[in-house]
Amino acid sequence: MLHGKLLRSTSAHGILRRVDASAAERLPGVAAVLTGSDLLDAPIASHYGPVLPDRPLVAIDRVRYAGEPVAAVVAVDAETAEEAVRLIEVEIDGLPVLETVEQATADDAPDIHDTIPERDALTFPDIVLHAGAGKNVCNHFRLRHGDVEAGFAEADEIFDEVFRTPAQQHCNLEPHATIVEIQDGHATVWTSAASPYTVRFQVAETLRLPQSRVRVIVTNVGGAYGAKTYPRLEPLVAAMSWKAGGRPVRVELTRREEFFTITRHAATIHLKTGVRHDGTIVARLARILWSAGAYADVSPRTIKNGGYSAGGPYRIPNVAIDSYAVYTNVTPAGGFRGYAIPQVAWAYESQMDMIAERLGIDPLELRLRNLLVEGDEFATGQVLEDFHLRELVERVAERIGWDGGLARREGSAARGKGLACILKTTVTPSISTATLRLDDDGSLTLLTSTTEIGQGSRTVLAQIAADAAGVPLEAVEVPYPDTDLTPWDQTTSSSRSTLMMGGAIELAGEALRQQLVELAAELLEAPTEVLTAADGHVWPEERRDRGLTYGDVLKRSGRRQLSAEAQNASPGGLDPESGQGIVTPHFFHAAAGAEVEVDLETGKIKVLDLHVETYAGRVVNPVLAALQAEGNVTFGIGQALFEEIELDAGQIVNASLADYTIPSLEDMPEQWTVAFGEDPSGDGRIHGLGETGAPAVPAAIGNALHAATGVRVTSLPLTPEKVLLALDELERGSTPLPEGRDARAASIGTSP
Amino acid sequence: MLHGKLLRSTSAHGILRRVDASAAERLPGVAAVLTGSDLLDAPIASHYGPVLPDRPLVAIDRVRYAGEPVAAVVAVDAETAEEAVRLIEVEIDGLPVLETVEQATADDAPDIHDTIPERDALTFPDIVLHAGAGKNVCNHFRLRHGDVEAGFAEADEIFDEVFRTPAQQHCNLEPHATIVEIQDGHATVWTSAASPYTVRFQVAETLRLPQSRVRVIVTNVGGAYGAKTYPRLEPLVAAMSWKAGGRPVRVELTRREEFFTITRHAATIHLKTGVRHDGTIVARLARILWSAGAYADVSPRTIKNGGYSAGGPYRIPNVAIDSYAVYTNVTPAGGFRGYAIPQVAWAYESQMDMIAERLGIDPLELRLRNLLVEGDEFATGQVLEDFHLRELVERVAERIGWDGGLARREGSAARGKGLACILKTTVTPSISTATLRLDDDGSLTLLTSTTEIGQGSRTVLAQIAADAAGVPLEAVEVPYPDTDLTPWDQTTSSSRSTLMMGGAIELAGEALRQQLVELAAELLEAPTEVLTAADGHVWPEERRDRGLTYGDVLKRSGRRQLSAEAQNASPGGLDPESGQGIVTPHFFHAAAGAEVEVDLETGKIKVLDLHVETYAGRVVNPVLAALQAEGNVTFGIGQALFEEIELDAGQIVNASLADYTIPSLEDMPEQWTVAFGEDPSGDGRIHGLGETGAPAVPAAIGNALHAATGVRVTSLPLTPEKVLLALDELERGSTPLPEGRDARAASIGTSP
Repeated sequence: MLHGKLLRSTSAHGILRRVDASAAERLPGVAAVLTGSDLLDAPIASHYGPVLPDRPLVAIDRVRYAGEPVAAVVAVDAETAEEAVRLIEVEIDGLPVLETVEQATADDAPDIHDTIPERDALTFPDIVLHAGAGKNVCNHFRLRHGDVEAGFAEADEIFDEVFRTPAQQHCNLEPHATIVEIQDGHATVWTSAASPYTVRFQVAETLRLPQSRVRVIVTNVGGAYGAKTYPRLEPLVAAMSWKAGGRPVRVELTRREEFFTITRHAATIHLKTGVRHDGTIVARLARILWSAGAYADVSPRTIKNGGYSAGGPYRIPNVAIDSYAVYTNVTPAGGFRGYAIPQVAWAYESQMDMIAERLGIDPLELRLRNLLVEGDEFATGQVLEDFHLRELVERVAERIGWDGGLARREGSAARGKGLACILKTTVTPSISTATLRLDDDGSLTLLTSTTEIGQGSRTVLAQIAADAAGVPLEAVEVPYPDTDLTPWDQTTSSSRSTLMMGGAIELAGEALRQQLVELAAELLEAPTEVLTAADGHVWPEERRDRGLTYGDVLKRSGRRQLSAEAQNASPGGLDPESGQGIVTPHFFHAAAGAEVEVDLETGKIKVLDLHVETYAGRVVNPVLAALQAEGNVTFGIGQALFEEIELDAGQIVNASLADYTIPSLEDMPEQWTVAFGEDPSGDGRIHGLGETGAPAVPAAIGNALHAATGVRVTSLPLTPEKVLLALDELERGSTPLPEGRDARAASIGTSP
Repeated sequence: MLHGKLLRSTSAHGILRRVDASAAERLPGVAAVLTGSDLLDAPIASHYGPVLPDRPLVAIDRVRYAGEPVAAVVAVDAETAEEAVRLIEVEIDGLPVLETVEQATADDAPDIHDTIPERDALTFPDIVLHAGAGKNVCNHFRLRHGDVEAGFAEADEIFDEVFRTPAQQHCNLEPHATIVEIQDGHATVWTSAASPYTVRFQVAETLRLPQSRVRVIVTNVGGAYGAKTYPRLEPLVAAMSWKAGGRPVRVELTRREEFFTITRHAATIHLKTGVRHDGTIVARLARILWSAGAYADVSPRTIKNGGYSAGGPYRIPNVAIDSYAVYTNVTPAGGFRGYAIPQVAWAYESQMDMIAERLGIDPLELRLRNLLVEGDEFATGQVLEDFHLRELVERVAERIGWDGGLARREGSAARGKGLACILKTTVTPSISTATLRLDDDGSLTLLTSTTEIGQGSRTVLAQIAADAAGVPLEAVEVPYPDTDLTPWDQTTSSSRSTLMMGGAIELAGEALRQQLVELAAELLEAPTEVLTAADGHVWPEERRDRGLTYGDVLKRSGRRQLSAEAQNASPGGLDPESGQGIVTPHFFHAAAGAEVEVDLETGKIKVLDLHVETYAGRVVNPVLAALQAEGNVTFGIGQALFEEIELDAGQIVNASLADYTIPSLEDMPEQWTVAFGEDPSGDGRIHGLGETGAPAVPAAIGNALHAATGVRVTSLPLTPEKVLLALDELERGSTPLPEGRDARAASIGTSP
């Protein structure tokens, strides 16, 4: 096995004049150096991309962000590869660096891409593409519901604000690491990836192989959060193996390199909302600019979700949304726990409290008046089912002792409480396939391509399989995903696995039990209708003593193994003009309540108490569900208080865990709890929990900050500096520190 | 990974008084030493065995053959393990060595086993066990068909001879090699095995794990021939890994150790045959003693096949057969290309020529008069279908220029021609399962647990899959077997894979095409009846231009992958008292003709010409089929002329490829050809070819030897020494060298 290291651009934008790898190639121990010139007229594809193939494997004639791979060295060990990387000479002619969406969409900005490639709509049915919507706009999502102009005409008050959220990094504990070997026209990929079939598609496309000739093997993944949902390293390592004659090549990124690999989109969210005096929302207009970074990655998908969700979980008859992915000279952005909802929820839930304040309505009351309920239409026209957000919000308010938004002072400390609630969809159309194999000793194997990314899927899916097939949990074996052998699954992401793969397993279990019943019917000479298959036995009505074990049913029927495979598919799709259609099998939903204490001298926010309620439908494993929800709280706190990729002329200045802070145990609230709404019937439909709670947390904290201090910070994170600045501004406005929701809000944020 | 080496007994039979591994355990680099004392009250099973668990993992209180493992060392490398093996002290009190079945069945022989364990008949439906049938008899198979006493009463002549065949070694090029790792209650086994699920069963039983907790992975196997059909090394390596705390342990046997691992049964075959003057066979009585070696291994299965086949491919109304597996103090015996037919065919086809000679009937004519034809009953009562042996025999006679069995002399060289023909069954009941997965780019994956043991199964099964699913061959991918992932298959042996797995693939292909047609019917708005799925497309009647590719059918239907799994089962079973019942889905059959030249001064036989005709039903791949048939010729020549494990007081004296000779290219005939019978309709049922030709070869050569010289050697191999001895005896009997079939036969063989 050989080892690879990457030479990355130190320039954020420029014309690549020369890459001279000759000295590197001469270094003893170096097997190959891949540069852009290798990709011209190569038998492999030069570009890749999970949605649009706009990204070269290594830079060819241009670099588009600081940290972009320019050359890749393959050597006998990582140290030699690293040394060879330093021997490569690169010449780049600088171009203007477009760090922000504002810079990139300016009329005089250079085009970051000359052309934007297209994708086959049959293969990518969930992409709604509008090219050419503006300078450096990679993609545009558009939604029109009702008549937004008429809506604003009806409004008594109009709220018009801009909210901002920064780029973040996923900081998955295990970095991206991939091995690719190519032999006899077959590629084998061992990788730390969340979605093996997505990797297979991309590597097959890169190497121009049929999909069945690419084998992707994934064992336990040390954290993903969206960073590993789509192939970000695998196509390049495949190309490196190709350059090295197919020999196995291993690349493991450093922590620093993770910051050059994938981020959460920075977003500028302009929300205009029309309301009546009684708080009824009648119109919303949203214009969102997402900083996609230098390449499209999954931006067309992310900004679609962030787009249609900008109305929030509210009954708004008239909605117009335009959501734009904008190319910028920064690390590409993709999905990150919450998939664009953390950005738009920050905006719409901050604005809800601003509306409540101006109208003099309790923020809880304003939400309850406008919340969607079952039978209502979402902004996409889809009718809501199994939707219980009202109850969640009420339980959160009760749990945190909602006080209407009062400020409480004690010396230089100000305390206040805030609420927020959100809804979230999951990728649609959505397909999962599961196979169950029952052996003649009653042991069961579940074949699934769902990956274990720390979310506990191996345990939860084994539980579902045990219940579905009627065997004890300890009888269930779950081999790791391997695309040569485990059946197709769309992706392990989007909080979909328990719902979609769980559903596939339930269908397979039903089919397996049906086969067992049919075999047993012959053995027991009983009609199938009177037979029950459960607890590892098949028995006739009320005669459990006459039952046969599953193993004996097989053996007596001359079988050694029974299999059942099932596909669980959830259809959907949006009209590209109106954004109307089916977006999700269920609307996931959650509410959060926070109490904070703000140090008025330092601006530091301490979260005293936090509670998150998530609707689960049915909780499969209470311990793992709680861990998922607690993870959401942690991610919400990080987004709210610290996390931000800091840039200077396109260069990331905090690309390490020393400088980029994520929550430690010390940052967690003094008290925090999570809870789940469940269908009391016990057979509720499963709702995804993996991300649902996170997006509600930052706005709950921001609203609590406002309740405590009267300041309204519209850009995340809520750093002490921003809080102090806002407190200063409030003071300079000669307004006394507010007591409760009557106080006037001071709004700050990076100037537009 | 650790490496293991075995200490093997130098005593062929004895009480194990002491095993002292303390010095070995102290050697730096040694991780563990497994001895019999570890197996007392262990959490793992102490004994194993593919049919009867009569074999300790390492000797516990007794050694039963020279070469039996007594201790197993696990160390950091093979050299250290080897060194530690030499430090183990062993004390054994010798017992009488029972080298032959005659010795072992003598009344005063010691019992090699005190008890014979039993097996669950549900799990082992194909085993017909009769314990306690005599001294050291491990197992007895009994067949009664018609009334054999009445048959002999009708006979005009009775032939009563004893034939013998020696033990042989498979000499698979790749020795047995296995790695086992045990982690978190799961065992993973990488092994050179022919039947992954058989290994899984045995390792699960050894480690007392559910079957689904054992994963067996097999890539290309470097030759098997029956030596790797059942686990012979894996349970021990599993126990070694257990003793080493679950760490991965690798053991690779040396060539010498292969001779201590598995052999072909030496057999003593007593055939008594009653015939009328016109050559009609009216009765056969067979009593066969098989030297099972020290442990049962698969003897109960092998001797059943050799038992019911002792009537040969002839219409014999009255048959009585008793077939005994006899424990002896030699290396255990198992299946070996032909599965007991090479032994019994040697006997019955030699005797056919002896009958022809005494009755003055042309051996060809005698065979044609008695050969079974379609509609006849086999000795087990099963009615023959698709049986064409008469045509094969006639074609062989024509091809070799059959001359009635004339001798031709030229100086000291005598030439003659001989014929032989056989039938063979395949294991029944028999189950194979195959899964086909079609991806949305039209590529197809075949999941099968059939192993590639050099027979070409990966190619042949891919061809069948391509035809069955209607895709080009290059679209088919065949991952290697992995019991966690590829579906259950009984075994890669018994010439069954193309027939049984091929059949499963055809059923799966049909189901896959049906799914494609159903999806396309909706897309094309056409009834399923008018749609054809082939050549990677689905099209409506006569409108191929309106067709859709398989990939587009999937994508347009919102699918990414279609799967179909099918099981192909062939039932069967024999009545334990009468041996009557169903033994095979088809009766495989072959005929051979040979011309030899015997050097009357040296006794050396040179095969001048050889032709083998095998009925194939349908040849899937002509090149691979011919290679299989040529392999059969080679194995037949080795059995006929040289191969024999030589023993001295239970010690193998030729346990190397320097001393144990297998055919080289120089030993092959000057001219040799193979041909196949096929169903002229082109859609014949597939017959197994992997072993069918081999058993006919030795008797064809032995009969040619007789034709050339007049000597009848009844024991294999036909060494120059035996031929010279027989020539001497013939001469001493003052009978002139024979011209053709009128000459008197001299019969020799090891004295009973």
